[in-house]
Amino acid sequence: MKQRLLLAPTLREAPSDAEVVSHQLLLRAGYIRQVAAGVYHYLPLGRRVLRKLEEIIREEMDRIGAQELLMPAIQPTELWQASGRYEVYGPELIRLQDRHGREFALGPTHEEVVTTLIGQEISSYRKLPLTVYQIQTKYRDEKRPRFGLLRGREFLMKDAYSFDIDEEGLDAQYWSMHNAYHRIFTRAGLRYLAVEADAGAIGGEGDTHEFMALTDIGEDTIVTCSSCQYASNLERAYAGAEQHASQEEQALEPPLAEARAFVPPMEQVSTPQVKTMEELMQFFKQEAKQMIKTMIVVADGKPAAVLLRGDHEMNETKVKNALQANELELADEDTIIRVTGAPHGFAGPVGLQVPVLIDAHAAGLREAIVGANQVDAHLRHVVPGRDFALPQVGDYRNVAEGDPCPRCEGTLQFQKGIEVGHIFKLGKKYSEPLHAAFLNEQGREQTMTMGCYGIGISRLLATCAEQLNDANGLTWPSEIAPFQVHIIPVSIKDDAQRDACEQLYAKLTAQGVEVLLDDRDERIGVKLKDADLIGIPLRIVCGRDLAEGLVEVKKRTEADKRLFSIEEAMQEALQMKR
Amino acid sequence: MKQRLLLAPTLREAPSDAEVVSHQLLLRAGYIRQVAAGVYHYLPLGRRVLRKLEEIIREEMDRIGAQELLMPAIQPTELWQASGRYEVYGPELIRLQDRHGREFALGPTHEEVVTTLIGQEISSYRKLPLTVYQIQTKYRDEKRPRFGLLRGREFLMKDAYSFDIDEEGLDAQYWSMHNAYHRIFTRAGLRYLAVEADAGAIGGEGDTHEFMALTDIGEDTIVTCSSCQYASNLERAYAGAEQHASQEEQALEPPLAEARAFVPPMEQVSTPQVKTMEELMQFFKQEAKQMIKTMIVVADGKPAAVLLRGDHEMNETKVKNALQANELELADEDTIIRVTGAPHGFAGPVGLQVPVLIDAHAAGLREAIVGANQVDAHLRHVVPGRDFALPQVGDYRNVAEGDPCPRCEGTLQFQKGIEVGHIFKLGKKYSEPLHAAFLNEQGREQTMTMGCYGIGISRLLATCAEQLNDANGLTWPSEIAPFQVHIIPVSIKDDAQRDACEQLYAKLTAQGVEVLLDDRDERIGVKLKDADLIGIPLRIVCGRDLAEGLVEVKKRTEADKRLFSIEEAMQEALQMKR
Repeated sequence: MKQRLLLAPTLREAPSDAEVVSHQLLLRAGYIRQVAAGVYHYLPLGRRVLRKLEEIIREEMDRIGAQELLMPAIQPTELWQASGRYEVYGPELIRLQDRHGREFALGPTHEEVVTTLIGQEISSYRKLPLTVYQIQTKYRDEKRPRFGLLRGREFLMKDAYSFDIDEEGLDAQYWSMHNAYHRIFTRAGLRYLAVEADAGAIGGEGDTHEFMALTDIGEDTIVTCSSCQYASNLERAYAGAEQHASQEEQALEPPLAEARAFVPPMEQVSTPQVKTMEELMQFFKQEAKQMIKTMIVVADGKPAAVLLRGDHEMNETKVKNALQANELELADEDTIIRVTGAPHGFAGPVGLQVPVLIDAHAAGLREAIVGANQVDAHLRHVVPGRDFALPQVGDYRNVAEGDPCPRCEGTLQFQKGIEVGHIFKLGKKYSEPLHAAFLNEQGREQTMTMGCYGIGISRLLATCAEQLNDANGLTWPSEIAPFQVHIIPVSIKDDAQRDACEQLYAKLTAQGVEVLLDDRDERIGVKLKDADLIGIPLRIVCGRDLAEGLVEVKKRTEADKRLFSIEEAMQEALQMKR
Repeated sequence: MKQRLLLAPTLREAPSDAEVVSHQLLLRAGYIRQVAAGVYHYLPLGRRVLRKLEEIIREEMDRIGAQELLMPAIQPTELWQASGRYEVYGPELIRLQDRHGREFALGPTHEEVVTTLIGQEISSYRKLPLTVYQIQTKYRDEKRPRFGLLRGREFLMKDAYSFDIDEEGLDAQYWSMHNAYHRIFTRAGLRYLAVEADAGAIGGEGDTHEFMALTDIGEDTIVTCSSCQYASNLERAYAGAEQHASQEEQALEPPLAEARAFVPPMEQVSTPQVKTMEELMQFFKQEAKQMIKTMIVVADGKPAAVLLRGDHEMNETKVKNALQANELELADEDTIIRVTGAPHGFAGPVGLQVPVLIDAHAAGLREAIVGANQVDAHLRHVVPGRDFALPQVGDYRNVAEGDPCPRCEGTLQFQKGIEVGHIFKLGKKYSEPLHAAFLNEQGREQTMTMGCYGIGISRLLATCAEQLNDANGLTWPSEIAPFQVHIIPVSIKDDAQRDACEQLYAKLTAQGVEVLLDDRDERIGVKLKDADLIGIPLRIVCGRDLAEGLVEVKKRTEADKRLFSIEEAMQEALQMKR
């Protein structure tokens, strides 16, 4: 491709609303343009990278025997009613009416549609296992689209769905897909981790892993162990101690019970204006881990309380799952007053009339300080189980850095990550309500066992850009670069330079190398700046050394430039071929 | 690919609502399934053909220097307001609101969006000419989705847009695209014609051609000449005579004026219950071509009259264009009575108070019989220009088979066609209102000159299926077939047969031939029936002749089967490689 006519408008400055480096660079280097919040054009360079990612994904899906199909974005909402997700998805599900008033959704995912299809078309165990996938545009009306392609409202996905006779079959397909994902992200040149995850709105009760690209701007916190392979999303991570402490019996094992026998009776203390954990610590001269904080939450509209040790943070996912809720939020002041009888800062477990979840660490305290459910008052010498009941002890907190690993003797560490892939064992979550069944070898009807497997392709593009860059621009590896070689004459008006570049361009192109030739009438400084910004892995500059038959060859990721004969440069360039 | 696990559910019977052969066969052979009216799944076989078509189109677009990008389906409706098409498109434009109440459309086409983009990004003549294209899913809420993929509501399109300095540049790109379209449809194995067309809701005033696949179920009528290359959509076709007769002066040239001098004065005749052309002919004992029929139409809500010779048919497109209307329909009885004072069947030109269009053939009659605008009455001896004015004489009729060709001495013939491609010279229709301008060589601002070029890819798939079939199923050419070779053992349980087939399969696959191996445990009759239905171009059956090292080779489109050695069969199969 010749650069003069290429639609790749580079910008010196990124728009001020581009907060993260991938968004800035993709805009500045002319890969994408915004149409509306969370809705983008992929300009030719961006489209090329997107297609490379699509092809990698296709190859790896085909390799594990997944079959490509294409399902529509427009989906009858009846299917979402049938699966029970019509409500769960809320305003993120874009709904529309056709001219006859029938309601449709723009698919954010295709479990309902594919389960219905396969349920209708497959009737015998002989056609199983089956994995289908598609590369298709998805829609989600994000509350806050941001970070360019990282959180868009229209985005490209690869979504795959597996159908099996039983859990064993699902397990095989799940791990085969797991391996395929490793190959895909490795080929894309990504630094990433596969982590244990929460199934969220899509999943069932089975295994689920997220593939997390490691980057400081990640919205997810990844928990890893200092010594073993344990890796989990913070949403789901648990610490070593929890394995035991989460048993209510453990919390009340004899030594603790004995120690509690010596705790004086509960006592109310006047604590005017003492609301925050810090104020409490100062007032009582005690550490946070000797307090229990009582968080009032609203789960699907109903209030509940969550008790945590003062130094711990609530894990919303764990609480949501425990309450089997779709939506969870912290209660507002009115609700707190209604539930506890006191304003924010004085809530406590004693006498509460709403459902109470107690984190095992809180439940395991010998005694604690808690709010008194009265303004300006707290209770001390409060013993869990003695002064308030322990109906639902469990793990409701975020693990903290330094916590013990649940799998080994190591300690837990935090990193930030962006989810680029997510695989789920769905089990029968969709096949049951949508009646996807088959006749088994014995001729009996049996419900299919499903898995689903997604990769956000446009997000992957942005994530690669987020990791693969330096101060001057993007630094693509050749497998996903829009072009592999960038040929730049110092002056396009110099006949010898132009001819040499054109010849090299023609030869490499004929050999299947994707080459961008900068035939613009621009100063060399401008051309090199643009070249760095665009980030093609190998650059060949043809200048005055051409008189001696030499050209300058430089890898985008390396500092040193080398003078090569044209033949040597050509050999170097052929190495870049995908 | 092994057929046992392939998701290609064949059906013995097509659903009763599948009216046309392509729809029936694509359903029966397991290429597609319906999700909702006009919304389909492409199952693996259908997806494969679709991808082949996409690749052909990509190659031919890249060959002429068009650059691939990807624009979103979600479009801000402000852009449609700005171009003036928000109203024109009517209920076919699917509209939706996001969670903040902002309105968007699901793009049926991308002129507005691409013109805005290019207007923002290109500012100099040095970046022109530019042609961009995308392969992308489009939405149109058809009043009556039908014929499977032929008229869908969600469909795959290739749409390209060219931007030029001037008309000359546009002309060059238009014809380069014209040639690319010929290569695409030829490679797809289609019987088609490029015909002159009407620009409809998209186009401007410039040239426009439709690429029409020839098939009896086509909704368009194509007019061709018996001896020259003239080919036009009936909507736009004109006959040889029209070139002269459309001049009002011609209609009143001296001989006619002289002849009219002898026509007696206009006279009213009582014609009880005489309404249709046939009844009139019988009543007056005259031919239809001696009558003028008066059609009352409603154009964008306003009534008008169209006068045609009794033996001619109104051409709605020509009338719509003459009235510069978006919507045109025949008036209902109430409107007819309001406009003419009489019920249907008695309308006439004398005394009408609405705008009147007069087809040149009607205007050129010496005298005529017309409705009297009174119930049960007609007028005879009516002379156009004497008894009623001739404000707007033109060509408002459909040409008829046998009419003279406008280009040569031949006569016109009719065929039926399906539009699979359409190219337009848009000129400044979008660049003007959407301000897509550049600085020309003299540094002055100049509006871009545009063209647009569409191919309905999913429709092309169905159209190929409509043309490429026989009584037993589909008959794909190897360039677009889902697989090129179909290997079928007579019995998969026969070890020798299975091994021979597996080996051939492995060898051919390694050589890059796409092979489907029927490894199902089915009777050979079932397998051969399915093979014919699916329509892979070369079939290799491995049966008892294997004992002598022979297999049966048959082309799908030929009747004769040949016994080949495995090596010969392999050579034959390699020929099928794309």
